[in-house]
Amino acid sequence: MPSYTAPVKDFQFILHELLKATEAGIPGYDELEPDFTNAILEEAGKLASEKLAPLNSSGDAEGCVLENGVVRTPSGFREAFEAVKEGGWNGLDLPEEFGGQNLPVLMGSAVGEIMCSANMALNMYPGLTHGAINALLAHGSDEQKATYLPKMVSMEWTGTMNLTEPHCGTDLGLIRTRAEPQEDGSYAITGQKIFISAGEHDMAENIIHLVLAKAPGGGEGTRGISLFVVPKFLINDNGSLGDRNGVSVGSIEEKMGIHANATCVMNYDGAKGWLVGELHKGMRAMFVMMNEARLGVGVQGYAQAEAAYQNALAYAKDRLQGRAVTGAENPDGPADPLIVHPDIRRSLMDQKSFAEGARAFAMWGAHLIDRSHRADDADAEGLISLLTPVIKGFLTDRGFDMTVQAQQVLGGHGYIEEWGMSQFVRDARIAMIYEGANGIQALDLVGRKLAADGGKPAMAFFEMVKGFIKEHEGNEALKADFLDPLKAASKDLQTAMMYFMQQGMKNPNAALAGSTDFMHLFGHVCLGLIWARMAVAAQAALDAGKPDATFYKTKLATGRYYMARQLPATALHLARIQTGADTVMALKAEEF
Amino acid sequence: MPSYTAPVKDFQFILHELLKATEAGIPGYDELEPDFTNAILEEAGKLASEKLAPLNSSGDAEGCVLENGVVRTPSGFREAFEAVKEGGWNGLDLPEEFGGQNLPVLMGSAVGEIMCSANMALNMYPGLTHGAINALLAHGSDEQKATYLPKMVSMEWTGTMNLTEPHCGTDLGLIRTRAEPQEDGSYAITGQKIFISAGEHDMAENIIHLVLAKAPGGGEGTRGISLFVVPKFLINDNGSLGDRNGVSVGSIEEKMGIHANATCVMNYDGAKGWLVGELHKGMRAMFVMMNEARLGVGVQGYAQAEAAYQNALAYAKDRLQGRAVTGAENPDGPADPLIVHPDIRRSLMDQKSFAEGARAFAMWGAHLIDRSHRADDADAEGLISLLTPVIKGFLTDRGFDMTVQAQQVLGGHGYIEEWGMSQFVRDARIAMIYEGANGIQALDLVGRKLAADGGKPAMAFFEMVKGFIKEHEGNEALKADFLDPLKAASKDLQTAMMYFMQQGMKNPNAALAGSTDFMHLFGHVCLGLIWARMAVAAQAALDAGKPDATFYKTKLATGRYYMARQLPATALHLARIQTGADTVMALKAEEF
Repeated sequence: MPSYTAPVKDFQFILHELLKATEAGIPGYDELEPDFTNAILEEAGKLASEKLAPLNSSGDAEGCVLENGVVRTPSGFREAFEAVKEGGWNGLDLPEEFGGQNLPVLMGSAVGEIMCSANMALNMYPGLTHGAINALLAHGSDEQKATYLPKMVSMEWTGTMNLTEPHCGTDLGLIRTRAEPQEDGSYAITGQKIFISAGEHDMAENIIHLVLAKAPGGGEGTRGISLFVVPKFLINDNGSLGDRNGVSVGSIEEKMGIHANATCVMNYDGAKGWLVGELHKGMRAMFVMMNEARLGVGVQGYAQAEAAYQNALAYAKDRLQGRAVTGAENPDGPADPLIVHPDIRRSLMDQKSFAEGARAFAMWGAHLIDRSHRADDADAEGLISLLTPVIKGFLTDRGFDMTVQAQQVLGGHGYIEEWGMSQFVRDARIAMIYEGANGIQALDLVGRKLAADGGKPAMAFFEMVKGFIKEHEGNEALKADFLDPLKAASKDLQTAMMYFMQQGMKNPNAALAGSTDFMHLFGHVCLGLIWARMAVAAQAALDAGKPDATFYKTKLATGRYYMARQLPATALHLARIQTGADTVMALKAEEF
Repeated sequence: MPSYTAPVKDFQFILHELLKATEAGIPGYDELEPDFTNAILEEAGKLASEKLAPLNSSGDAEGCVLENGVVRTPSGFREAFEAVKEGGWNGLDLPEEFGGQNLPVLMGSAVGEIMCSANMALNMYPGLTHGAINALLAHGSDEQKATYLPKMVSMEWTGTMNLTEPHCGTDLGLIRTRAEPQEDGSYAITGQKIFISAGEHDMAENIIHLVLAKAPGGGEGTRGISLFVVPKFLINDNGSLGDRNGVSVGSIEEKMGIHANATCVMNYDGAKGWLVGELHKGMRAMFVMMNEARLGVGVQGYAQAEAAYQNALAYAKDRLQGRAVTGAENPDGPADPLIVHPDIRRSLMDQKSFAEGARAFAMWGAHLIDRSHRADDADAEGLISLLTPVIKGFLTDRGFDMTVQAQQVLGGHGYIEEWGMSQFVRDARIAMIYEGANGIQALDLVGRKLAADGGKPAMAFFEMVKGFIKEHEGNEALKADFLDPLKAASKDLQTAMMYFMQQGMKNPNAALAGSTDFMHLFGHVCLGLIWARMAVAAQAALDAGKPDATFYKTKLATGRYYMARQLPATALHLARIQTGADTVMALKAEEF
């Protein structure tokens, strides 16, 4: 059975030496002293290792079962859910007013990674609740907040997001679910929603569904969509639970992974719902909390890579097979451990340099969200909006690839379920799809975010990279290994952007045909930047003679690997982008 | 449920316009007239579409069940197996002497692709039998051939290959299964083998296990290994089945995919076995038929990509979502089909250009095997030995990636099992692992094949590419799109090889750290070469005014896509290779 240990030391390095949290000048960051954050991360790590990770494989094997309209979660999940609930983990970064602890998203994201590495399917129940809470926080009336939020923050009730219908996923303008206004001010919601994660389960007293539907008079397409809150059980005036509402689970899906999280078909038969936010402005309401939700999915991507890497590494150190080409390293044993072999080492370094770089990138993203929300910083808001599709798309694509590499380290044992590596691959796969499939992330990036606000955030990003390189270009220890590759990669990104701008108006297909490559190009530059920043921090620690020099040296060596072996991918993505749309669009649909 | 149609036209193009089979001067190729090969492929395609493909999803869902020592295959598998058997498909490329039809491996490989695209798990039963037959053909005594081969060729009996043990996979020198000589000339085989595909099932009267074991006096490591044939039921002198032998299935593995093929733990408790080939030369016996077996696994890789592509394409044409950025293409409908979107088109072109290129590459490989075996051509033998790890490693790695891309086209529907895309991904995954994990293929390529025979095959490959380019460089229609990119890619490959040669002796880790990149670099060059050769053939057909110009134009457009968008990956692989081992091996094992 796979095991998991939270990378607390790495988090601490990111929080305090890379991001220098307490000096960031963001409200609430001043309390993030190293001892405090260490205590939180250690405690989360303990829960993850001891209570969540041990249920990961069994939850996958057992799955969820629908019987008589009730979804039964796998053995042990209720108890683990209770442990998360009792620890108050769901409210960590939610307002104190509703029972949360009001810590920054930065800490919420770190804890989210830990829980997700240990048990992604279980962590989706609070994860989706979080999304629903954020929607209500942003758009709910005071009464709605008072009614729903305290119970949702405490996880007595969980939440869901209902967007997809059988005939429409991405193109929400096509939805058919109807909302008919009632005399009491509520709406009668009727329609079918599919792929509803945690749509029904047996771990909470009530489930609060947020549902996109069309109310009369809104016009065609996405303009006519409104957002409604539809509780599974109606809530009496005194806060107690009343009648069962007209919403029920039709079936649960058999799927590739996240078996322990029920993916439900939800049927709304005149269910009682209440408008959240403005009528016909439902899309805006859904999108406002998307940066944070998509950050969360990006975290899922690398969290699975981290967990898979830990287990591949353990296997590579333990399994004896073959001899090092440079001479036996375990001469008294029948063979050397796998880790002596350069190709295994390459794979482990791919995984390690990705997971650590991704963690730092995502934490930087969380920090930007905090800066945007807590310090009302419009530049930070612009930048995180630009980076969000990169965080979501790049980290989940690459995170999945890394789980596949980790699985490969175990050979045949990676393919059988007993060792748990297959599950990391199968679970990680969904993160590339939900919360906006990665092709949509790329489209959002190229078609919307690059040009947003007159291109100001994109320009600011390049200025930041340029400023960073300039600031450190005198640092001879880092120049060749970090700054020069970053400069080259950043130039590739700029060249690609220029190409899009030149093509943009006259040939929009040219930009869109390169959108996925652009997203990956951008992702590599972000990881290159964050690795260079970590190198500066690690080098500074070494120069200052800080204890545990091995940690910093290892950090530098891991960064050098990324810069040397991964970052050159930017040139390939640029080369593809520059071929434009000609070969992509050459065939007519019927010629395929 | 996914569907499958055999790409007969594409096979015919490869057989008759690319490889010009009847003119190849290889014994047996003269009968491969277009009408004849078309009839075979159509018939195989019919069986695949009508009998095998419909059982693919249900076989996956049902899986194999072990009860009281007997493995029950999924519903319908016996009937489908009978249909394959009755059609004589297993013997297609096996000697007439033992009941086969003696067609070239070229045709066997084509039919294998078709069966595998339709139902990989089912096709593994004859596939493994094929491997065992080839081992007996190469090393069995006349008596062994007479005893086993007729029934195996007819598929009354199936075969297995028993190599792996719990503590050793790749490093077979560590095996512990023992063979004790008996007075009657047989051996008593005792030990445990794992990951034995088709080790036990209910579709054949007998199962013939080929088992690697150590007989006394052979010395340490792989030198002490011999190959034995161990039938499930002993065979009486009159050919009838006798007593049950001391071999039994201990358990079957829960695994990521190929659920309908039982992966068995096999226990040998003094089972009666007979030596195949020379004592203590078992490894040589296993390796001699490896080119063909590994070609077969490479075929599995792209066969799954082909099947996944067909279904992704159908979905992309059918599913209405969003509007083309250049204006509605389905103005009367609620939305345009997915295929109008450039990023979907890019994904489909990735898949299509890979599957068609891979097919041509594998068919060329089969053709080289035929040339080597049937025409005793040592140069062809050298070349196919060089290319075998590329065919196996590159086509399965990339084939898997393409199934993932195909799955992505379906969004959430790709993740649920109902649409069958998850299965293509899960089934394709094993091909990267078995028959020598892909890291081992890369090691074989770089550590052994490049330098084999004084580097003659590698040099011959480059000469062939150079000769091809020279021959066609006056062809202006192809120069910029095909010949120039091929030249650049081939130069990257040569540069990488030079780098290895320079490093080779003094720093073997430098070559091994780049081995997987080199395998992929080589694979891209092979696909670039085969695409350029197909372009020449397609252009010639167009110039000659052959009917169905659309087919040839589409072929050229698909090739242009590969050359423009995929082939530039060679530069990235070269860049990685040239960083050597420094960053790969920088960390000590304990620093990870």
